[in-house]
Formats: sequence, structure tokens, C-alpha cells
Amino acid sequence: MTLEPDSARRVYEGRLIGLTVELWGDHEREIVEHPGAVAIVAVDGDGFLTLVRQLREPARKLLLELPAGTAEPGEAPLETARRELQEECGLTGGRWRELAAFWTTPGFCRERMHLFAAERVVAGEASPAADEELELVRWPVAGTADRLHEIEDAKTLAGLLLYLGTRPGRTGLH
Amino acid sequence: MTLEPDSARRVYEGRLIGLTVELWGDHEREIVEHPGAVAIVAVDGDGFLTLVRQLREPARKLLLELPAGTAEPGEAPLETARRELQEECGLTGGRWRELAAFWTTPGFCRERMHLFAAERVVAGEASPAADEELELVRWPVAGTADRLHEIEDAKTLAGLLLYLGTRPGRTGLH
Repeated sequence: MTLEPDSARRVYEGRLIGLTVELWGDHEREIVEHPGAVAIVAVDGDGFLTLVRQLREPARKLLLELPAGTAEPGEAPLETARRELQEECGLTGGRWRELAAFWTTPGFCRERMHLFAAERVVAGEASPAADEELELVRWPVAGTADRLHEIEDAKTLAGLLLYLGTRPGRTGLH
Repeated sequence: MTLEPDSARRVYEGRLIGLTVELWGDHEREIVEHPGAVAIVAVDGDGFLTLVRQLREPARKLLLELPAGTAEPGEAPLETARRELQEECGLTGGRWRELAAFWTTPGFCRERMHLFAAERVVAGEASPAADEELELVRWPVAGTADRLHEIEDAKTLAGLLLYLGTRPGRTGLH
């Protein structure tokens, strides 16, 4: 089995994403190009999780999500994650570990996401980008499993479930 | 807060996806148009889960995922899910429930996904599409929590974790 396309042509070049049409044998594949992303389950020393609520234009509504962001060129995933958590939420420090890495929508998009947990993060001053209007929302970790129906974002569901299943002292999945 | 863009222009129209650039106040948003999708946690009467392994061209590798597919025009999510499970895996019947509905990548894409559990499904003949080469993989549900590190797909992680946390007799999340 070949793991490279026979040919590829870029049909759109945008600011965040691009679009490539690849030919694999008989089949064309439309592929969204994306630089990669991170999301963070950030918990402070009092056992509170920080989520962000923001307008998601494609959904035409406000969604409640893990802090997340897109990789800058040359940035390692953990760097992106620490930068985004500070910029979006003003949270710094903490003990970090990677929970998972995955493709978000591997049928049609090149976005790979790294998901981190950061525990004992410390509150400070946020500095969101000019086009980000974020509301920070704090949830006690202890009540999170009962509120997952409020989440309508794939990475946030996966991240919270992974975190709840792997944290120390969990009553978790095994 | 307005929940409609000031303007929108379609910049690419593909077979599965399209691309729209929307203007929201000062900010442009590049949005991938997608008809919506489903994924299914399908478990047979012997306690085996069915996964599919297939080449995912954007990832340049084989990935192990829940059976999934894209909505046809006018199709309700449960219809799509039953059709895809039969086509991809030859599985029919079963008791169905919706586990969750979410946006897969709400920062840049309109794809909304419905995630179902189907229990006591019955094996039959699959009829995959011409451009789908699928290997069916069966896992005992009982061992799934220990094998999540083999999964590199967001919907599959979210779906398996939700299923493990909500099935009858679970040792689950609460």
C-alpha cells in the first residue's frame, strides 16, 4: 500500500487553512491543510477546571470548550499549549503531561491535535488575541462527569473523559 | 451579540467539502462546509466491538476508528448511522441510543457529528463504497479501556470513552 498520493494540487490558500486535492490511484481526496493544534485540561490547586466560552462562527453559537489553539511555525506542541493557556486564560506554571495525540477529522483534514493536562496551574493576566472574545468558566473537577451533556465540542469531550479516567485518585474507567 | 455573519462568499466547492469566507465585524473566518456525520459504537451480543482500519490520506497512514460516515441529503442522523454501519461493517439490527452530538472542529469547520451506541448488532454482509478499503477489527469491550492508546482519532476516543462510561454495569466515570 502506498502512503503518498500520485499527485496533489493546492486549490485554496487561506490564512489559517488551505485546501489540497490529492489523487490516490483512481480516487480524489479533498484535504484541508491545518498547522496542528493543542487543547489543555487545566486544573488549579483548588480543584477547578478552566473552560472557555466563545462564539464559534461555524456553529453560529457560543460553545464551551477546553482552552486550545493553533501551532505557530516551528513551535513544539507543549510550547503552543503553554502559550495558549497563558494568552487565553492567564494560567501559568503547573505540572504538565500529554493525555493523547490524535487527528481531529482524519477523513478530510490534516489537523493533528495534542491534548495536555496541566495541574496546579496558577492564575494571572490573560492576553487574548484581538479577534477572540472569551469568557472564562470554572467548573469543579468533582462535578464534571455529571455536566458532560453541556459540552458540544469533540476535543473537549475527549479531553475531559481522558482526564477523568486517568487522574490520580480517580474512580475512573478501569 | 450577532449570530450571523455580515457577509459570506463561497471560495471553493468540492465534492465532499466546500470553503466559505465569512465576515464577522472586523474579522474574516475561513469555514469548511460539511454535510454532517455520524459514528457508531457497535457491540454484538458476544461483547465485541467492531472498529474499522483504513488508509486516511490526510494522515498518510492507517487509522483504527469507529465505523462512521457522512450524511446524505435529507437523511436523519440515525438513518445515516444505520446505513453506514450496514455498508461498512455488514452489521444490522441492535438497540440504538445517541451518546452525544458535537462539532468536530468548531474553530474552522461546520461538521456536526452524532455519536450512537448500537448494542446486540447482528453480523451480515458488508457493501463498502468503491473507494473504501476497510479492514474490520473486533475488540472485546472488556479490554477496550486498556487499549485506548492505540486510537489516534478524536471521535473514536470520545465515543469509546462515553460508551465505557455509560454502559449498563459499567465501573465508569462517576
